[in-house]
Amino acid sequence: MNIPRMSFPRVVIIGGGFAGVALAKKLAKQEVQVVLMDKNNYHTFQPLLYQVSTGGLEPDSIAYPIRKILKDFPNFYFRLANVEEIDTKKNKVRTNIGNLKFDYLVVATGSKTNYFGNSEIEKHSMAMKTIPQSLNLRSLILENFEDALLTSDLNERNALMNFVIVGGGPTGVELAGALAEIKKGILPKDYPDLDTRLAQIHIVQSGDCILKGMSAQASQKAEDFLEKLGVNIWKNVRVTNYDGKTATTNTDLTFETATLIWAAGVKGATIKGIEAQELVANSNRIIVNEFSQIKGFEHIFAIGDIACMVNEEHPHGLPMMAQPAIQQGEQLGDNLLRILEEKPLKPFVYKDKGSMATIGRNKAVVDLKKWKFQGVFAWYVWMYVHLFFLIGFRNRMVVFVNWVYNYVRFDREARLIIRPFKNKHKVEV
Amino acid sequence: MNIPRMSFPRVVIIGGGFAGVALAKKLAKQEVQVVLMDKNNYHTFQPLLYQVSTGGLEPDSIAYPIRKILKDFPNFYFRLANVEEIDTKKNKVRTNIGNLKFDYLVVATGSKTNYFGNSEIEKHSMAMKTIPQSLNLRSLILENFEDALLTSDLNERNALMNFVIVGGGPTGVELAGALAEIKKGILPKDYPDLDTRLAQIHIVQSGDCILKGMSAQASQKAEDFLEKLGVNIWKNVRVTNYDGKTATTNTDLTFETATLIWAAGVKGATIKGIEAQELVANSNRIIVNEFSQIKGFEHIFAIGDIACMVNEEHPHGLPMMAQPAIQQGEQLGDNLLRILEEKPLKPFVYKDKGSMATIGRNKAVVDLKKWKFQGVFAWYVWMYVHLFFLIGFRNRMVVFVNWVYNYVRFDREARLIIRPFKNKHKVEV
Repeated sequence: MNIPRMSFPRVVIIGGGFAGVALAKKLAKQEVQVVLMDKNNYHTFQPLLYQVSTGGLEPDSIAYPIRKILKDFPNFYFRLANVEEIDTKKNKVRTNIGNLKFDYLVVATGSKTNYFGNSEIEKHSMAMKTIPQSLNLRSLILENFEDALLTSDLNERNALMNFVIVGGGPTGVELAGALAEIKKGILPKDYPDLDTRLAQIHIVQSGDCILKGMSAQASQKAEDFLEKLGVNIWKNVRVTNYDGKTATTNTDLTFETATLIWAAGVKGATIKGIEAQELVANSNRIIVNEFSQIKGFEHIFAIGDIACMVNEEHPHGLPMMAQPAIQQGEQLGDNLLRILEEKPLKPFVYKDKGSMATIGRNKAVVDLKKWKFQGVFAWYVWMYVHLFFLIGFRNRMVVFVNWVYNYVRFDREARLIIRPFKNKHKVEV
Repeated sequence: MNIPRMSFPRVVIIGGGFAGVALAKKLAKQEVQVVLMDKNNYHTFQPLLYQVSTGGLEPDSIAYPIRKILKDFPNFYFRLANVEEIDTKKNKVRTNIGNLKFDYLVVATGSKTNYFGNSEIEKHSMAMKTIPQSLNLRSLILENFEDALLTSDLNERNALMNFVIVGGGPTGVELAGALAEIKKGILPKDYPDLDTRLAQIHIVQSGDCILKGMSAQASQKAEDFLEKLGVNIWKNVRVTNYDGKTATTNTDLTFETATLIWAAGVKGATIKGIEAQELVANSNRIIVNEFSQIKGFEHIFAIGDIACMVNEEHPHGLPMMAQPAIQQGEQLGDNLLRILEEKPLKPFVYKDKGSMATIGRNKAVVDLKKWKFQGVFAWYVWMYVHLFFLIGFRNRMVVFVNWVYNYVRFDREARLIIRPFKNKHKVEV
């Protein structure tokens, strides 16, 4: 792979998400060679993907070139690569651009959408885990409205204007809120010749509450906010199939919709070479100890969404969110330096900094350890925290300008179909 | 096409570029039904496409939703459609979403890249006339550098880092300048393990000067600027073929390059139904009179790049630029209202407001009627004019923030491969 061998040990990191980047930063300017591989040349700030889908932000606002994050660090190598297999016997990774030996390996491949084995849902539904997926969803939403103008069949038109979001977690809730605001503020102006009041937004939640990782108070308030925005919430309903037209459920309920967004679950993005016994059965997460080590290895680690690390509060593994990923990355960085200095490792202790979700303008819910609050102030806190955690001053500025504009003007201007999704065949580019 | 017949006459405009939008704005709030069709749902500010290609700006900064431009105007209808044929006998347009009768028709389809019949160049080269094309070029440039890291074949590596721009017009000059600045400011930091000094940027110009539409003074100064930036300019050389690896010319000169950008010419984007005798032979432009009427018709017009209108100064047609397009659109709007009021038409008079091009930071050339200047002040004027002509306050703000950032930090952060071009098959999205 054209990477020189140095006198320092080589740490190979697979994945440039929150965990991988946090780790790489810790190892910068240390006596260690770092090779970071990712299938994209950018880091994605996933919490704001729904704003890309809904035309509030462009990709460059929430993506950041990985090379730039680490450009001032010597001994740092980035490779745009798909890792195909890990050879734990020969300490080697096999990729589409060649093989590479490692001294230490860190699997930080994150998670991907979990369709629970339903290939028809996988084929027909939209996901929102990556920037291209989010742009596809944006295109589809806009294309559906253009198509709704063309049909005189009322059922078809309604199906084109119906949105079914499966899953009432933060992704589903935030997307539903954004769609509801678009329905209210933008559609009537953009499509005066369409009765956009008929557009419906549904959240289908298999459990008995939305935002189930948060407090009962936050969950209830989020539900109130969504209902005020006109979102229909269906609890204790499970979507069982979707053929591109009709979504069936485990109840009598069915939905006619051209757009089903699957936000019902994620699973670890595993790599060949990690044995089945090292994985948690349902979630495909790699079992790790308190030092992030994969069972049976001292020099192979997993961090972030892909890693299943348990503690007393989380017997089924820490939540698959940014905070544990960042903290594990930083902790592992420190531990790797301890290994090199032949010092004993320190166990990981998760510091829960709270969680939050936004529903719409002036509407958010925040759970801190000792304080739970909702509404306008929560919304400001949500915005501040998300701006703060974005990488890069320019990204913060551009997001800030967009948010202020969108707030003042009740608008989202990036409603552009740059890469046609549904009508790909129709439009020449 | 589901568009109601009103008591007002119907004007169908094909194309939402500078000409079509200027015309539609003039007809807003008048007693006329306007149907604007475009194959994209956005208007493109083409003069800044090269900044999208080079990672300085994102598409939403230079694109604007057409529905939003005209959202407050009654009697205005937008349709996302490919117009396939004009039936001048039945006064009807045929599109991929159905047919539509018109009372007045305006062809404002603009121009497309002219390969002068060379299908091999068309197949292997990159163009920069649309946002998707510009994003493809951005991806290709970045992918080439990633690939350059992987090869140990020096010739291959050089070819991956060589850029050949065919055509020394504003597009070619501005792109060359931007690439030269990236080579100097960004590549050495992003690719420390690559000798990026070997990257070469070439402009190949068939005539004996660059920017030939501008003054000799501007042309000479632009050449000086480019040479200072390390761009190689080859004059009186014509690229005769390109097979994806080697570009041959009408001289002994050949270029080994993985990236050939074809900016050597444009031609009218004609539609079936406009007869050959109505077109200028080489450029495919539609011949119109001083009222923008197509030969033989009183109610069918052409404006902008597609229209060939001559005057004393321009015996071969007005330049294919934004200014004539906007002025023709506005003038035709006034004339259509005159027709409805049964007043005589006024002939079009082109007001040349001058032309300008930017080469890089603090380097631009401006030709006004009575004043020609170059350098730092010209650069400020260039920026001011381009910000001013961008549609939308948010676009101006976002572009401004990006430009200030890029200027202060010598940077361009949108170097993201969101839609892989070359390695499409390699990377799963």
